[in-house]
Amino acid sequence: MSADPLSTTLSALADPTRRAILARLTLGEATVTELAEPFAMSLPAVSKHLKVLERAGLITRGREAQWRPCRLDAAPLKDVSGWLENYRRFWEASFDRLDLYLQEIQKGNPDERH
Amino acid sequence: MSADPLSTTLSALADPTRRAILARLTLGEATVTELAEPFAMSLPAVSKHLKVLERAGLITRGREAQWRPCRLDAAPLKDVSGWLENYRRFWEASFDRLDLYLQEIQKGNPDERH
Repeated sequence: MSADPLSTTLSALADPTRRAILARLTLGEATVTELAEPFAMSLPAVSKHLKVLERAGLITRGREAQWRPCRLDAAPLKDVSGWLENYRRFWEASFDRLDLYLQEIQKGNPDERH
Repeated sequence: MSADPLSTTLSALADPTRRAILARLTLGEATVTELAEPFAMSLPAVSKHLKVLERAGLITRGREAQWRPCRLDAAPLKDVSGWLENYRRFWEASFDRLDLYLQEIQKGNPDERH
């Protein structure tokens, strides 16, 4: 795999379990066992997800051989956010259009206001 | 595939060609032929990428059978942005720490200032 960094990050995030692991790590570092607890998942399955997150630079792991606690590294998320900013005006524009449309409907049919 | 919407969006974005197609569509709608031009890609290959983007709701396509122009729909990107916001304080915090660290270095070694 020689994906560009942004593709690697987005691909790592495209999984609900991996996003849940990142959400757990916002509360502080955790071991694999601790991370596996809330999921109906084997330790090897969780370890596999952690490897994907680690390759994407979204987590770092401690050096202590037995525990190796995982820690969130949000730096790659900043790059995703930077890329998204190019599109902000488009989703804000479409929200404005929807808002205008709803206002038009309400003007046209005052009885349909709730 | 029964992926959740956010995973479907992130997965669709995890490809540089698909992100380039979205960037092109910020300039206005385009046909498959127009979208294929800047890439050394066959029309079927581009069509495949468009299907992924369409499934994720990131583009819509016109009804005219022959042209079917593609148009950007940024609504799913708004959801990605909303999800990312939970992590903003983490990347801003790590930037603050780096900034502090650089200040400390400069204080300690005034000769190393550039």
